Amino acid sequence: MNDFNIPESLLDENLPYSIQRMSLEEKGRLARDIRKTIIQVVAKNGGHLAPSLGVVELTLALLSVFNPSRDHIIWDVGHQCYAWKLLTKRAKDFKTLRQMNGLAGFPKISESPEFDHFGVGHASTSISAALGMAMARDLNGTSEDVVAVIGDGALTGGMAYEALNQAGGLKKRMIVILNDNEMSISKNVGALSQFLSRNLAHKGFLNFKEATGQFLKRIPKIGDALYDIADRGEKSFKTFFTPGMIFEGLGFNYIGPIEGHNLEVLIRHLQIAKAAEKPILLHIRTIKGLGYPPAENNPSRFHRVPGFEPETGLVPSPKINAEQGPGFTKIFGASLCRLAGEDKKIVAICAAMPDGAGLGEFRSRFPDRFIDAGICEEHAVTFAGGMATRGFKPVVAIYSTFLQRAYDQLIHDICLQKLPVVFCLDRAGIVGEDGPSHHGAFDLTYLRSIPNMHVMAPRDEEDLPNCLYTALQMNAPVAIRYPAMPTHAKIAPQEDFRLLEVGRGEMLISAPQKDVCVIAAGHRVHPCKDAISVLRQENISLFDARWVSPVPKEQLKELAQTYKGLIFVEENCRAGGFSSACLEFLSDEDLLAKVKILRIGLPEAKFVEHGPAEDLRKAAGLDWESLAKRFAEFTEAITA
Amino acid sequence: MNDFNIPESLLDENLPYSIQRMSLEEKGRLARDIRKTIIQVVAKNGGHLAPSLGVVELTLALLSVFNPSRDHIIWDVGHQCYAWKLLTKRAKDFKTLRQMNGLAGFPKISESPEFDHFGVGHASTSISAALGMAMARDLNGTSEDVVAVIGDGALTGGMAYEALNQAGGLKKRMIVILNDNEMSISKNVGALSQFLSRNLAHKGFLNFKEATGQFLKRIPKIGDALYDIADRGEKSFKTFFTPGMIFEGLGFNYIGPIEGHNLEVLIRHLQIAKAAEKPILLHIRTIKGLGYPPAENNPSRFHRVPGFEPETGLVPSPKINAEQGPGFTKIFGASLCRLAGEDKKIVAICAAMPDGAGLGEFRSRFPDRFIDAGICEEHAVTFAGGMATRGFKPVVAIYSTFLQRAYDQLIHDICLQKLPVVFCLDRAGIVGEDGPSHHGAFDLTYLRSIPNMHVMAPRDEEDLPNCLYTALQMNAPVAIRYPAMPTHAKIAPQEDFRLLEVGRGEMLISAPQKDVCVIAAGHRVHPCKDAISVLRQENISLFDARWVSPVPKEQLKELAQTYKGLIFVEENCRAGGFSSACLEFLSDEDLLAKVKILRIGLPEAKFVEHGPAEDLRKAAGLDWESLAKRFAEFTEAITA
Repeated sequence: MNDFNIPESLLDENLPYSIQRMSLEEKGRLARDIRKTIIQVVAKNGGHLAPSLGVVELTLALLSVFNPSRDHIIWDVGHQCYAWKLLTKRAKDFKTLRQMNGLAGFPKISESPEFDHFGVGHASTSISAALGMAMARDLNGTSEDVVAVIGDGALTGGMAYEALNQAGGLKKRMIVILNDNEMSISKNVGALSQFLSRNLAHKGFLNFKEATGQFLKRIPKIGDALYDIADRGEKSFKTFFTPGMIFEGLGFNYIGPIEGHNLEVLIRHLQIAKAAEKPILLHIRTIKGLGYPPAENNPSRFHRVPGFEPETGLVPSPKINAEQGPGFTKIFGASLCRLAGEDKKIVAICAAMPDGAGLGEFRSRFPDRFIDAGICEEHAVTFAGGMATRGFKPVVAIYSTFLQRAYDQLIHDICLQKLPVVFCLDRAGIVGEDGPSHHGAFDLTYLRSIPNMHVMAPRDEEDLPNCLYTALQMNAPVAIRYPAMPTHAKIAPQEDFRLLEVGRGEMLISAPQKDVCVIAAGHRVHPCKDAISVLRQENISLFDARWVSPVPKEQLKELAQTYKGLIFVEENCRAGGFSSACLEFLSDEDLLAKVKILRIGLPEAKFVEHGPAEDLRKAAGLDWESLAKRFAEFTEAITA
Repeated sequence: MNDFNIPESLLDENLPYSIQRMSLEEKGRLARDIRKTIIQVVAKNGGHLAPSLGVVELTLALLSVFNPSRDHIIWDVGHQCYAWKLLTKRAKDFKTLRQMNGLAGFPKISESPEFDHFGVGHASTSISAALGMAMARDLNGTSEDVVAVIGDGALTGGMAYEALNQAGGLKKRMIVILNDNEMSISKNVGALSQFLSRNLAHKGFLNFKEATGQFLKRIPKIGDALYDIADRGEKSFKTFFTPGMIFEGLGFNYIGPIEGHNLEVLIRHLQIAKAAEKPILLHIRTIKGLGYPPAENNPSRFHRVPGFEPETGLVPSPKINAEQGPGFTKIFGASLCRLAGEDKKIVAICAAMPDGAGLGEFRSRFPDRFIDAGICEEHAVTFAGGMATRGFKPVVAIYSTFLQRAYDQLIHDICLQKLPVVFCLDRAGIVGEDGPSHHGAFDLTYLRSIPNMHVMAPRDEEDLPNCLYTALQMNAPVAIRYPAMPTHAKIAPQEDFRLLEVGRGEMLISAPQKDVCVIAAGHRVHPCKDAISVLRQENISLFDARWVSPVPKEQLKELAQTYKGLIFVEENCRAGGFSSACLEFLSDEDLLAKVKILRIGLPEAKFVEHGPAEDLRKAAGLDWESLAKRFAEFTEAITA
C-alpha cells in the first residue's frame, strides 16, 4: 500500500464529465483502475469492499448517461459508493477513506454538495428521498433525472415498499435501479428474494421471451385467464411469475433482469429508462465483489472488512492480547447458546446480520429457533412480540443504531403489553469508521424512557452473560447494550450464570476518603477504573451502575449522601441518557443540594463523526486519559 | 341511549362458542343486534364506528370457523374490534366502551387474555405478530390457526410488507385477511390501492375467469410470453393484472376478491383458507359503515366520531364557549395556508390523516403542494427530506404517537443532514379515549435528544402561528408539538406573524416575591396560570419556556439564581423530557445547589390508560386543580 498511487486515469480533472465521451474500451480500463484502487485502499483502511466492487460498471454507466451534478443519483445504504466517490472529484483524497477528517464511507451531502445528493448509512431510504426530489423537480418545472439505486437486500425493508407504492401512485418520472446480487450482508431472506432467484435461475429466460413474444401477443385478453389458472393453485403457475409483475402491480414499468457488468447493455437500458415518462424499475444482476476473487468467493466476509492482504485476500485475525477481552459479541453468542441448550423456549431473532450480531453459532446449533427477519427491524420486533405471547423467550439481537427503526414497535408492541422480549444491542456507543449513521449514541435515551422497559449496560464480557441470564428470568421487556469493541478487562472463564438483582449496581473501588464517586454505566467502567488507578488518589471511588432503567435508586441515594461529588460517565448522548436518569431521581429525592455533579458522555448538540473508535473517544473525552484529567480537575475543585 | 339495553342475544353466556351451531338466519339476526348495539353505544361514547360496522359479518364468520380462544385472530389497528368484543364475553360491559376503567377501544391482552391475543392501536403490526404466533405454534407442535385481519389502508404500511415477505419465505401456515374497503381513515393512496380498485371495477371479473379458465389452461408455457408482452409496454397488459399476483409473488396463495358481507360466502372461503397448508391471503370486499346510512355515506366522518344522534346521524359541533380557544389543529391549518400563500416553497405532507392533522384546507387550496403519504410515517419523513434538499420547506403533520414510527428517519435522514423540515405533532400529550397506544407521551423525550433538532411547544393557539412562522425561517429541523384539545385561552385575532427568538421563553406572571417560579412548556401553561391565579399568592411566578430544545438557557440560569424553588410542568413522560433537559442544563451550570426542584409530568413507570382526557389529566395531576394543590404544597414547604 505504501507504494500504491492513485492511477492517473482517476486523477483526470475532467472527471466525471469526460466519461460521457469515452469509448467502451476506455471505460473498461477505467473500471480496472477503479477496482484496483478500491482494493488497495480498503485493504489498508478497511471498508465495504464487496458492495463497491459490484457496482463499478453501474457507476460508470450512470455517469455515461446522466449528469451527476444536475441529475440526482441516490445510493441506498451507500456502502457501494466508492467508485462514485473516485469518479466525482474525490480520487485525490481517496486514501483518507474512513479516516478521521478523511472521506466518509458513505455518501454525505456536506462532503460533496455537488454530487452526493442525499446522505445515507441505513437501508431502504433511497426511493423515498428520490421521490421527494422528483416531486420537487416537477413543482420547480425543471427536468433533471432522479435515480435511486437499491439492492435486493435493502428492498426487504418496509419503507422501500412504502415509497415504491407512493411513487407508482403519483406516477412521478423517476428511475429505480434494483441492484440484485442475492445478498444483503448475508444471504437474503424472504419470499421476494426466493422469487427473484427462482426466476433468474430459469436459464435462457430472455431469449425464450424474444422468441415466443411475437406469437403470443396476438392472443387477446389472456391475462385474466392466466390469473384464473393461478387461482386454482396450479403449481406450474409459479414458474410463470416474474419479478416484474410485483413492480408493475405497484405502478412501475419494469425492465429486466439485465446483466449488470456489461457496460454496453447497462448504458442502453439506462437510456431507455431515462426516456420513460413514468416511474420505471430497472432490474440488474450483479456479482458482489466482482473483480477480486477472494471477495467473489466470500462476499459476506468482504461485505465490510477490516484491513487485509490485497495479494492473498487474507484477513488477519483481530489481535488478541493479554490485556483484551474476547469481545461482547462473541460472549453474547456463546452465552445464548449455553442458555438455549437448556431452555427450549429461547429463540433468537436478528435483522439481516446473523454473524455481526453474534448469532452464527446459534444458527448452526438451533436452526429451528433462529430467525433472520431481513433488513426489517420493525417486523422483527413485533414478530418477537407475537412469539412472546405464546410462551417463548425471544432474544432480538439488533445493533443499537438499527433498533432505532423499531422505536415505535418497542413502545406499542412490546412495552405496552409487557411482553418478555430481550433486546441485545451490539454496537452501542461509538462504532468508529462507519461514522454518524452507525454510532449507537441514543439507545440509553430512547430505551430508558419507555415504561416497563428494563435497560442494562454490562461493563465487560464477564458481566454480559449474567445480564443476559437475568434478563431471561425477568419475564419482562429488557434491553442489554454493549459495544463492538472488546474491553481491556481480564475475563475469568465463565462458570455458572449469576442472577443479578434488578436495579442494583456494584461498588468497584471504595476509596478510603469519600470525596468523589465515579458512577459509570456500561463499557466505560474499565477506562474509568484505569483512570482512577493511574491517578493514585485515595479519594475517588468507582461505582458500576449496570442498570440504566431502573437506576440503582437505593445506592444512588446513599452515594449522593456520602460523597461531595458524583461523576457520571456513559457512552451515550448526554441528553436524556443515563446521567439524566440519575439526575431525575436525585432531584425527585431532593438530593442535589449538597453534591456536585459532573456528567461525561457523547455530545448532545452534534453527531459524532467517523474515524477510528479510539480517536473518536479521545475527541469526546471518553478515553481513560481524558477521563483521568477530568476526574482530577473535578476532584481538585471539590476538595479545594 | 338511556333506554337502550344490550340485546339479550348478545348476553347469551354460550357466546362465542354457540355461533358455530347457529343457522345463517340466526347469525343474520345477531348481526343486526350487533350493529344496533354498536351504533347506540358509539353514539353516546364516541368511537370508531365505520370500521366496526364494516366487519360484523367477518367477525361472525371468523367465529363460525375458528375457535377464538384456541386460534389467534389478530385485528390490525384494532379499531374494528367492537363486534369482536361484543361476541367474546364483553357485551355486558360494552356500555363502558372507551370510558375510564371501562372496555378499551382496541384489543387488549390484559382485558381479555382469552380472546384478545395481541394488543393494537397503531397500524400494520398484525401480520408480524401473527407470524410470530405461527412460528411459536410450529415449534410447540400444536395445531391452532393464526389469522391476521388487515385493512387495505394498513397494508400501505411498510412493516406489513416486511411481514408478508417473511411469511411467504418461511411458508408458515397462516391466514391473512385483506379487508378491502378502499379507505384507511381517508381515501387510500398509493399504487396498490389504485390497483385493487382498478381490478375490482372490472365487473363480471370472477365470472369471466370461470368461463375462460378451462380453455386457456390448455395452452402451455404461456406465462413468460405474457410477461414479454408486458415488458414491451402494451397498455392492455395493465388490465391483466390482479391483486393476487402481488401476493402470490410474495409467497402467498391468494383467494379473492369475495363479497365480505355475505356470511355464507365468507364462511365457505374461510374454511378453504383454514384447510391450506401454506400462507394464504383471503381478499374480501367490505363497505365501511355498512348498516348505518350516515356512516355508509360519509365513512371518513364516521371513522372515529365523538357522540352523535343515532336517529339522524347528526354529529353536534364541538361546544365552543367563550372560555375556549379554537383548537390547535384548526389554527395550524389556517396559519399554514396563510404562509403557503406567500411562499411557494412550502409543501405539506401527512400520513393518511389530512383532516385530523388540519390539512383539509391546504389540500383544497394547494393540491399540487399537498402529499398524503398513506400510513407510511417512515417514508413520509424521508420523502420530506428529499424535498428539503431541493429547496422546499416541507411541513410534515403527523400525530405525536405515530411519528414514533419515523424515529430513525428523524435522526438519519433529517437531523444528521440538518435538513429544514418542520414537523407539526398534533395529539401531543394525553389524547383521551383512544388510550395508551395513542397518547403523545414521549415526543419531547425522543425529539429533544436528537442533535440539530429544535423543539417548540406553543402554549396556545395564539402562540402556535408564531412558532410555525419561526420554524419556517430557521432553515433547520424543527418540531412543534401541541395537543388535540383547545386551550381555555382567550385568543386575539391573528394579525402579523411574529418571529420568535430561538431558545427564549416568556415570563407570564412575575410575582413580587421571588419564592417559586413555575416553568411550563406547551399547553399546560394555561392551567398553570389558572392554578396560580386561584391560589392568589404573591410569591409564585409563571414562565412559559416554549422551547424544549434548546431550553431557554440564559433565562433558566437567571430563574435558578433568583428563585428558591422551580416547578417544571409538562404533559410528556417525566423521563427524558422537558424537565429533564432543564435539569441537565442547570446541573452542568452548577445551579442546583440552592434551588429546590419539583417536576410534574406524565408518569415514567407506566402507560397512561384510556378515558376522557380531562379525567386522565386529573389522574396524572395535570389539571389546574391538582396543579394548584401541588404548587401550594411546594411553596409552603419552601417558605416554611
